Amino acid sequence: MPRGMKVLVTGASGRIGQAFREAYRDYYSLRLIEHRNPVHASSNEEVVSADITDFQSILKAMRGIEAVVHLAADPRVSAPWDSILKLNIIGTYNVFESARLSGVKKIVFASSNHACGYAVREFDLIGPDAPIRPDSLYGVSKIFGEALGRYYSDRFGISVICLRIGACHEPTVFFKRVLSSGGKSWYPPEKYIAMWISRRDMAQLIHKSLEANLKFGIFYGTSNNERKIFNLSSAEEKLGYKPQDRAEDHLH
Amino acid sequence: MPRGMKVLVTGASGRIGQAFREAYRDYYSLRLIEHRNPVHASSNEEVVSADITDFQSILKAMRGIEAVVHLAADPRVSAPWDSILKLNIIGTYNVFESARLSGVKKIVFASSNHACGYAVREFDLIGPDAPIRPDSLYGVSKIFGEALGRYYSDRFGISVICLRIGACHEPTVFFKRVLSSGGKSWYPPEKYIAMWISRRDMAQLIHKSLEANLKFGIFYGTSNNERKIFNLSSAEEKLGYKPQDRAEDHLH
Repeated sequence: MPRGMKVLVTGASGRIGQAFREAYRDYYSLRLIEHRNPVHASSNEEVVSADITDFQSILKAMRGIEAVVHLAADPRVSAPWDSILKLNIIGTYNVFESARLSGVKKIVFASSNHACGYAVREFDLIGPDAPIRPDSLYGVSKIFGEALGRYYSDRFGISVICLRIGACHEPTVFFKRVLSSGGKSWYPPEKYIAMWISRRDMAQLIHKSLEANLKFGIFYGTSNNERKIFNLSSAEEKLGYKPQDRAEDHLH
Repeated sequence: MPRGMKVLVTGASGRIGQAFREAYRDYYSLRLIEHRNPVHASSNEEVVSADITDFQSILKAMRGIEAVVHLAADPRVSAPWDSILKLNIIGTYNVFESARLSGVKKIVFASSNHACGYAVREFDLIGPDAPIRPDSLYGVSKIFGEALGRYYSDRFGISVICLRIGACHEPTVFFKRVLSSGGKSWYPPEKYIAMWISRRDMAQLIHKSLEANLKFGIFYGTSNNERKIFNLSSAEEKLGYKPQDRAEDHLH
């Protein structure tokens, strides 16, 4: 079977990159960016060496690419400004601009629940249209990426889907950790459970974002958890996202 | 009469800085940042040399300051990324972070109508809660500043007021220019007329923002024009802003 779109993945060695690749490496023709961490590619994945903070290297990696899944970032909520600036702001600009120059038609951008982290603490249910409430410089950088995506979509006609990803972790270990953290984690434990997303739901959400015929959208991504903190209805309606897993099935 | 709050003004030599200073230099105790352009201070204004892209210099300028009016930026809608990054992103972070370290309680941030410029083109009336639609990297940098302000307000308790400023120009020349531009200006001429703000209304809006007892807010700023494109009611209600001028009085 001939494989689908030629998709570049930044952050290919990370948790979310691995989840997406494992589920869809036979469906798409994947090109993976390798930078510091080894990517451990399978035989039908292409690996290129590039650095999102180096414009020329990422521009070179874009050649022939139809869609980009931009996951690379400093993922630490408490990351300091110097690193946020370099990786999440300059790096994200480099990815969008090199994609535009290369004729890329679609970008899926890994935003984060931390773009509205203060709302997560204060409210029971949040949708993608709520006023921005970043809880960190990391969260501010995700709002920057969403704004940049909105601009590239309006100005250059690139389809940009921003995913405010919940918490994509192996459930048993993760829930044990947050439940025993004694209030020392970023959010209260029950919020982490409500924002959990399984690896296969995460992969499906990226896949649906790549296939969506949509100019721009911001969507929250969690599994079909019994207790929800994020409104998934727009992702279900506009992307056709159908989460298959439930946090509560892994709690005991 | 003893003068009020000790206020630092960045961009003091610009159009908006001058309008604010002329109206309120006797009311506040103003410290003006001078960088490239001469500030032409009056005798009751203090001038310090500093560069918002140099963290140590701006930190030094913050000593003893109670409130900041942050106007300095690359003001060109078509400014290239390198300049936007340096002045509007890094510069704005430096101002917020040095203000925080210096115990500043209030920041008034000059955002812009270009934060939602695509909405200006598409809709007849826009409020500050509309989804972000930046029309330029400049507009993206203003969304970044608003997000940073929201974070500094939520996290550190600093009162941050973001003003999405319309078009603050001398009316006769400005209206003549946009009406004769033959569709070559950024927005259609009638939108510029609708978003005009007089110098004294601009000064009043900054003053009301400095005095407001409000944790965070985003407000549009225009005069009391007959044809409005921005909803001013939240600025009127929450800040007590009472614009005195009207674009239509200067059209003939």
